[in-house]
Amino acid sequence: MSVNKYKVGVLGTGTVGSVVIEMLDSHPTLELSGILNTRRGAFKNILAESDVIIELIGGIESAREYISAALSTGTHVVTANKQLIAAYGQELAELARANNAELRYEAAVVGAVPIISALQDQLSTQRVRQLVGIVNGTSNYILGEMTSQQLELPEALALAQQLGYAESDPADDLTGADAAAKLAILARLSMNVAVDINDVSYQGIEDIHADDLAYAQRFNLALKLLASAAYDGERLSLQVAPCFVSNSNPLAGIREATNCVQLQIDEIGELLFSGPGAGARPTAATVIGDVSRIIRGDKAPELESNADFKLDNDTHSSFYLHLLVRDCPGTLADIAAIFGDHRLSIASAVQWGVGTDARLIMIIHPCLHSEIAGAAKMLNQLEVVRSTPRILRLLEPV
Amino acid sequence: MSVNKYKVGVLGTGTVGSVVIEMLDSHPTLELSGILNTRRGAFKNILAESDVIIELIGGIESAREYISAALSTGTHVVTANKQLIAAYGQELAELARANNAELRYEAAVVGAVPIISALQDQLSTQRVRQLVGIVNGTSNYILGEMTSQQLELPEALALAQQLGYAESDPADDLTGADAAAKLAILARLSMNVAVDINDVSYQGIEDIHADDLAYAQRFNLALKLLASAAYDGERLSLQVAPCFVSNSNPLAGIREATNCVQLQIDEIGELLFSGPGAGARPTAATVIGDVSRIIRGDKAPELESNADFKLDNDTHSSFYLHLLVRDCPGTLADIAAIFGDHRLSIASAVQWGVGTDARLIMIIHPCLHSEIAGAAKMLNQLEVVRSTPRILRLLEPV
Repeated sequence: MSVNKYKVGVLGTGTVGSVVIEMLDSHPTLELSGILNTRRGAFKNILAESDVIIELIGGIESAREYISAALSTGTHVVTANKQLIAAYGQELAELARANNAELRYEAAVVGAVPIISALQDQLSTQRVRQLVGIVNGTSNYILGEMTSQQLELPEALALAQQLGYAESDPADDLTGADAAAKLAILARLSMNVAVDINDVSYQGIEDIHADDLAYAQRFNLALKLLASAAYDGERLSLQVAPCFVSNSNPLAGIREATNCVQLQIDEIGELLFSGPGAGARPTAATVIGDVSRIIRGDKAPELESNADFKLDNDTHSSFYLHLLVRDCPGTLADIAAIFGDHRLSIASAVQWGVGTDARLIMIIHPCLHSEIAGAAKMLNQLEVVRSTPRILRLLEPV
Repeated sequence: MSVNKYKVGVLGTGTVGSVVIEMLDSHPTLELSGILNTRRGAFKNILAESDVIIELIGGIESAREYISAALSTGTHVVTANKQLIAAYGQELAELARANNAELRYEAAVVGAVPIISALQDQLSTQRVRQLVGIVNGTSNYILGEMTSQQLELPEALALAQQLGYAESDPADDLTGADAAAKLAILARLSMNVAVDINDVSYQGIEDIHADDLAYAQRFNLALKLLASAAYDGERLSLQVAPCFVSNSNPLAGIREATNCVQLQIDEIGELLFSGPGAGARPTAATVIGDVSRIIRGDKAPELESNADFKLDNDTHSSFYLHLLVRDCPGTLADIAAIFGDHRLSIASAVQWGVGTDARLIMIIHPCLHSEIAGAAKMLNQLEVVRSTPRILRLLEPV
C-alpha cells in the first residue's frame, strides 16, 4: 500500500539543512519536494510542489521574502532563523494567520529545548514575570574555558573555534547580538509584549578578563552571559549582559554549549528548561518536530502581543566592581567619599596585590546601574585609580 | 457584550479543587457549572451542564467511573490523578478518542512542569532512550533534610509534615509507589511502550540512614529517590530506587520539593525540565492550563504505545556498599574472597571506626544488581559482618 506523503521543500543546505534532508529521506510520512541553495533550485517551483517549506538559509532579506511568499499561498513554514523572527515574527505570524497557514520556529531559540512550544501551548495562559536564560552556547563555552583554564578571551575563542563551538565570524555570539534576538522572541511569547529587537539593551563578553573570573570565584560567583527580561505588568526590562550568579544557582552549573531558561511564573513559581542550544542534529530534529506538528494539525496559538509596557533598562541590582589602584595613604578615603556621594553601599571588599598594582574588588549592595556607572565615572578621574573601573552585574542581590 | 463562556464542572473540593474554583471565578472565558464533593452535587446534573469535567477527587474507582461517563458522552476531561492514569490511562485515552473527547493530565506528573505536553507535542517524534527524574517532592525534601541536618528519617518526616511537604499518611511518598505511578506514565509517553504500573520495580527511602548520607558526601555523592527508565528498542527497565548521583550532576542540586526530569534523546542529547512538583496553586494553574488548551482546540495526539519490549529490571551499575564489620585479622580476606567469587571489583573503599564498630564503605565497579545482591547475601553470613549489608545504586558508573 502506498502512503500519501507530505511534501517538504528545503531552502538552504548548510550543516543543518543537510541533516534535515537526511532525516526526510528516512521519514515514514514526509518526502523531500525540492532543494534551494546558491547552486540549484528555483523557489517558485519548490513552492508549487510543497505542503511545507523549511527555511534554513538564514539572514533577513531573502528569507523574509521566501517565507512571506510561502505563507501568502497558504503554505506552512518552519524556520530556525532567530534574527528574522526577532525582527519580523509578529508580521509573519499575522500573515500566516490571514492565509490559514502555520509558522513554527522552535529551533530559532534555545535550540532543541522545547521552550517556544511550552510558552505557546501549556504555559500560554500563565503570567511570566521574569525570564533569565543562557541562550548563547558559544559564549557560555568560552566563559567556562576562561574560568577553568584561566585563559584570556582570544585563547578561549580559538579553542572554541577549533572544537566547532564557535564560527569563524563569532561577532554575534561575543557581542550579545545573538542572545538579544533570542530574548526579544522569548519576551514576546512569555510576556505578551510587542517588543522590538532594538528594545533589548545588550553587552557581550568582549571585555571580560580572566582575572575577574578568578577573583569572583573567591566570592562563590560564576560569570554567565545572561539574557533577562522582567515585567511587572507595566515596567519592562530587556537585557543581555555578562552577570555573576551564585554557585548555588542552577545557572552556574550550565556547562559548555548547553542552553538554559528559567521562568518565574505568578501561580507556578520557577520552571527551568535546559538542553543543547545548537548543533546540526538537535536543530534538524527540532525542525522536523515542527513539521510533524503542522502535519498533525496542531495550531500555533494566535499571538496576542498587545500588553502595554514602559521600557526601562536601568537595572536595580548588586554589582561587582574592580578597581586597579595605587595603594597609598588616602586612597580608600578618596574612593569612599565618591561612594558616599553616590549613596553606594559596599557589601564586601577584598584587596589583592600591593603598591601600584593593588586591586580592590568590591561587591556593592543593590543600586541602579546608572548610579554605579556615575560613581565609576568619578572614580576614573581619581589619580589613585589607574584604569577604567570594571563593573559587572550580580543576578542575585547581596 | 456578553461572552459565551465554557462551562466547567469540578469534582472534588480539596486544596487543589478550591483553588481551581477560585481561578475559574476570575477567568474571562471559563465558568463553573457545578461542584461535586461528599456533601453536595449530583454528578449526572453536573455532567449535563459541563463542556469540561475536572476530576480532583483522587483514588481509582469513583474517579474512573466519572471520567469514563464523561468521556462516553463526548465531554472533555482534565485530571491530576496519577494513580488512575498510570493504571487506566490507555483505556481512558482510547475511550476519549472513540467519543471525540479530549483527556488531559499535565498536573498528574511532575506538577507544574509541562513535561506531559512536551512529550505529547514537540518531542512526540523523538526517541527517548533514557529518562531519569526526581518526581516525588516529599522524599526529596526529606532526603535533603536528612543530609543537611543529619536527621534520621522519622525526624525529617515530622519536619516535612509540619511544613506541609508531607501528608499525614506519607506511605506512597516513602515507599516509592507515588514515583512508580508517575514513571509508568512518563515511560508510556516517552518510549511508546504500553507498560503496566506493575512493571515498575520500586523501592522507597524507608531504609535510608543518615550515616550513609554522611559517608557518601565524602565520595562527592548525593542521595536522591530516582525514577528511571531505559529503553534500547528491546530491553526496558523501569525502576524507582534511592540512588547516589555525583555532586556535579544537575539532579544533585534539585532542592526541597522541586521535581526534575532528564531525558536522553537520540538526535538531541540531554534535555532537562524542573519546577515545583506539587502545591495547590501550581497544580490548579496547570489544570486550568489543560482546560485552556482543550477550549482552544488543541488535540492530544493519539497514543501509540505499541513498541515491543522485554522488561528487565536487573540494573547494571556501580554500587555503594556499607558493611558493619568486626575489625580483626582476616576480615578483609574473608570479604575479598566473596567479592572474588562473585567477580565484583572495588573502585574505592574507606574504613571508618575501629573494633566492633568498624564500617567498610565501598564503591563497586559496575555489575548487575543480582550479582551484588548475591554477594551481599554471602557477606551477611560471615561472622565478621555484624548487620545486613546496605546496598545503594550509583547513577553514574565509577
